[in-house]
Amino acid sequence: MPIRDLAIGFDADDTLWHNENIFEHVHVRYRTLLSRFHDAVTVDRTLFATEMRNLERYGYGVKGFTLSAIETAIELSAGQISADEIRQILHLGQDMLAHPVELLDGVAEVIGSLASAHRLLLITKGDLRDQERKLSKSGLSVHFSHIEIVSEKDPTTYERILRRHGVAPQRFLMVGNSLKSDILPVLALGGSAAYVPYAITWGAEKVDTLPKAEGRFFQLPSVRDVPTLAQTLAMS
Amino acid sequence: MPIRDLAIGFDADDTLWHNENIFEHVHVRYRTLLSRFHDAVTVDRTLFATEMRNLERYGYGVKGFTLSAIETAIELSAGQISADEIRQILHLGQDMLAHPVELLDGVAEVIGSLASAHRLLLITKGDLRDQERKLSKSGLSVHFSHIEIVSEKDPTTYERILRRHGVAPQRFLMVGNSLKSDILPVLALGGSAAYVPYAITWGAEKVDTLPKAEGRFFQLPSVRDVPTLAQTLAMS
Repeated sequence: MPIRDLAIGFDADDTLWHNENIFEHVHVRYRTLLSRFHDAVTVDRTLFATEMRNLERYGYGVKGFTLSAIETAIELSAGQISADEIRQILHLGQDMLAHPVELLDGVAEVIGSLASAHRLLLITKGDLRDQERKLSKSGLSVHFSHIEIVSEKDPTTYERILRRHGVAPQRFLMVGNSLKSDILPVLALGGSAAYVPYAITWGAEKVDTLPKAEGRFFQLPSVRDVPTLAQTLAMS
Repeated sequence: MPIRDLAIGFDADDTLWHNENIFEHVHVRYRTLLSRFHDAVTVDRTLFATEMRNLERYGYGVKGFTLSAIETAIELSAGQISADEIRQILHLGQDMLAHPVELLDGVAEVIGSLASAHRLLLITKGDLRDQERKLSKSGLSVHFSHIEIVSEKDPTTYERILRRHGVAPQRFLMVGNSLKSDILPVLALGGSAAYVPYAITWGAEKVDTLPKAEGRFFQLPSVRDVPTLAQTLAMS
């Protein structure tokens, strides 16, 4: 059977490199900082509510998170938080931006090998500069033909990207850890999607039920399983 | 003489719509907020120094500005600033993000008329979501074939954009209010550039001397003068 052209899109955070675990560590430090005002559950719930309220305004990424964390700290302390404690929140954000990029197990080999047979696209949301910096630190950029840093990952965004690069949805496989951002919108366009869950899922990305799309939706335990799937799809 | 294809790039902030005047108003409110600690000159100088120190980390845009303004306020008040005052700085940032988009004089007509004869590219830096939101509010997006929101405007960035869209630098005219970001990098690639100064120039964009590039560099009093220039260049 002939191998037909298959383009593969990869999400970045928690698909290529660890991200949510960095936020998790920051949440621990943040709860400790606010522990004299509120318990951990209240801190988590209020911070998440602030982030959701500010999402349209700030978009995704570390800078918006830091601003929401400062806003929440002022709210939860009824204005009693000190300037020094707010400075510590600024530093939490700056530490996240300076954090080393740690690739997930198998990513370096898999991306390197897929790049020789397929056109690879990186499709990620977040802060423009932060995502570019992480990609540069990752050493993976050379393997991607196109880098797309977008403000939202919905069907319109994917449609625009695929059109721009002349990729038919039927010949596109998206790989990612978020059902909401990486899988559902691509299935909606008629593409294929490989869901590779990460250990932690951020509340805003949670989806209750797995999608049904016979022969187009795949849940894989590891990115190491992508090459076999890609080969199968390329032959189909 | 035949009219040859000419693609025109436009900067956004202070080229298509007012921006620096919004920052200017925010600076006034910020100085007032810190006036019990320091005089206006010290406040301005320290804020600018913080912004420059954080530029690599935060990139351009309102969110990074807000974070730098909070950091500066803590520093200038030696930790004496109150949570309520920091909340006011958060609100300054949020007001900027919610600000209406006010087109510069002549922009609506000029962009509409140029779009019928040329391929128009919007090339801007800043926060991804904020720039998309302003473009959407501006009502101008329909006239641009491509929107490029980038983290830095240097020759590498322009080269990548022109290559992606198949535009030869010799057939490209960039229009903008910043010599540093809109004019010099495009001239360096062999393109043409129209410098349309705005009333206020942000410190980080200042350049001391005008570039020399016979027949490729033009200083225009208003965006209204771009169509005539474009016509001349298209005929050349």
